[in-house]
Amino acid sequence: MSSTNPIDWLLLQRIVRFGDIDSAGVIHFHHLLRWSHEAWEESLHIYGLKAIDIFPSLIDSNSFIHVALPIVHCEADFFAPVRLANELEIELSPLRLDAGSFQVKYVFKKGDILVASSLIRHRAIYTDSRHPCDLPEGIDRWLEVSSLNRGISAL
Amino acid sequence: MSSTNPIDWLLLQRIVRFGDIDSAGVIHFHHLLRWSHEAWEESLHIYGLKAIDIFPSLIDSNSFIHVALPIVHCEADFFAPVRLANELEIELSPLRLDAGSFQVKYVFKKGDILVASSLIRHRAIYTDSRHPCDLPEGIDRWLEVSSLNRGISAL
Amino acid sequence: MSSTNPIDWLLLQRIVRFGDIDSAGVIHFHHLLRWSHEAWEESLHIYGLKAIDIFPSLIDSNSFIHVALPIVHCEADFFAPVRLANELEIELSPLRLDAGSFQVKYVFKKGDILVASSLIRHRAIYTDSRHPCDLPEGIDRWLEVSSLNRGISAL
Amino acid sequence: MSSTNPIDWLLLQRIVRFGDIDSAGVIHFHHLLRWSHEAWEESLHIYGLKAIDIFPSLIDSNSFIHVALPIVHCEADFFAPVRLANELEIELSPLRLDAGSFQVKYVFKKGDILVASSLIRHRAIYTDSRHPCDLPEGIDRWLEVSSLNRGISAL
Repeated sequence: MSSTNPIDWLLLQRIVRFGDIDSAGVIHFHHLLRWSHEAWEESLHIYGLKAIDIFPSLIDSNSFIHVALPIVHCEADFFAPVRLANELEIELSPLRLDAGSFQVKYVFKKGDILVASSLIRHRAIYTDSRHPCDLPEGIDRWLEVSSLNRGISAL
Repeated sequence: MSSTNPIDWLLLQRIVRFGDIDSAGVIHFHHLLRWSHEAWEESLHIYGLKAIDIFPSLIDSNSFIHVALPIVHCEADFFAPVRLANELEIELSPLRLDAGSFQVKYVFKKGDILVASSLIRHRAIYTDSRHPCDLPEGIDRWLEVSSLNRGISAL
Repeated sequence: MSSTNPIDWLLLQRIVRFGDIDSAGVIHFHHLLRWSHEAWEESLHIYGLKAIDIFPSLIDSNSFIHVALPIVHCEADFFAPVRLANELEIELSPLRLDAGSFQVKYVFKKGDILVASSLIRHRAIYTDSRHPCDLPEGIDRWLEVSSLNRGISAL
Repeated sequence: MSSTNPIDWLLLQRIVRFGDIDSAGVIHFHHLLRWSHEAWEESLHIYGLKAIDIFPSLIDSNSFIHVALPIVHCEADFFAPVRLANELEIELSPLRLDAGSFQVKYVFKKGDILVASSLIRHRAIYTDSRHPCDLPEGIDRWLEVSSLNRGISAL
């Protein structure tokens, strides 16, 4: 997964699995938000950031991460049925909102058909005090480069 | 679970479990939307509707339900940390939008503190053709009685 | 949730929800293990143990729990279809295996019909070093009282 | 995803995501069984079987699949911590048990370290009557070719 294509970390794929589908035969709705978060993690990974530097995860008392990025808002819209084995394309549009928060919009397509979209908004806080703080430098860079590339790709 | 209290199907409880919490120590966000849907199912059950009359579920080729209520939009906001073993109160506010759609707003409180809210919007469709149709009678009644009771409880 | 009945923390209930069911119309298998873990947490709660004293959960750098109880083995057997809205009874049989490990067997019944069973085995470790250690005192007591009560209830 | 390598559908990869990890900092146990099922689906897909021919999924009243493959037993063992962002290798060992049932063993490795294993056993039934029946032809072929290839690869 090299990063030669400027936006390869903003265009991902996902195949819908049996456990994602409910007994009405379409995606059980909240899994779309799970997929969105996993697509964000994959995007950071392809771009070159390490998950263990971004996400708090109790390993031992020394590995404490001092800034967390909790989700303050999420939403999803469903336009067409998402079914078992559908091969979806996911396009990410990250946007820095201010010094301490950002959002990512996710668009899910089945071929040319827009099937769903979602939005997740994060705010940086100090893990200990939970007071607002600035975004970590890695996330800031990912946001900036992603915007630049989007600008170029829109020409 | 009797229905003597007029709004007993609109005020529910939930205890946060270990698997709901991520390694940042708070609810992993999309579980709140799972809880919301489960609260809706519990509400219908307490009110007196049978799940097998409402939700499509492949049992055999004779048990086909002709109207489905897919989710067209959902959202959630997070105001304060939801942590392991928190005992949450969930208040539901159902609202009929038009002949074929409705939404439910869910407010999550820890004691007097508002910790999160969510909104899920459903639209009725024929299961076979997926064309829009009117809400099933049971859902319509649940929406109407829920609004009446809310009116009374607000006096 | 009083503890006057000697085994009230070993006999629980669960209603099957829409999101638990897959598109074959029965429980999506691994949810049964999720339910089992949640039943264990509910059992400890009814017995009188606090989740925040048992389960590691990153809150701040001071709230570190020194013993964890990771799962080393789990299994489940499915005997009859578990369907939407089924009201299941869950019977727990905890068993201390040695000074540092225990298991809980879970039996799921729909009325008189045995529909599924599961088993989860835990081992105590120091959170920091991950070396084996003795079970926490609270868990030890819950195991002992649960065995006593089972003995009595079997008379 | 071509099938030129004889066992390319029996050796898969998975990266551990934030939502898979619980607040003890390791995989929340039942997700390993979700991953196992998803690895099985991916294996069938790479081998060349279509999910919509294998898995019942309510689409319309005409798309009824007549044989289902419910899980009758599953188990998992955990040998070493599975942590955020771990890149795991999953090796599948399918085995036909009799005319109507089979199992798949899944071994999870992090580099050379065995971190976990799982086993899922399926039995073929008629969807309508739920009586036992023979395995679908596609699954039978996938089992046979997988055994042959394993034999060859073991030389």
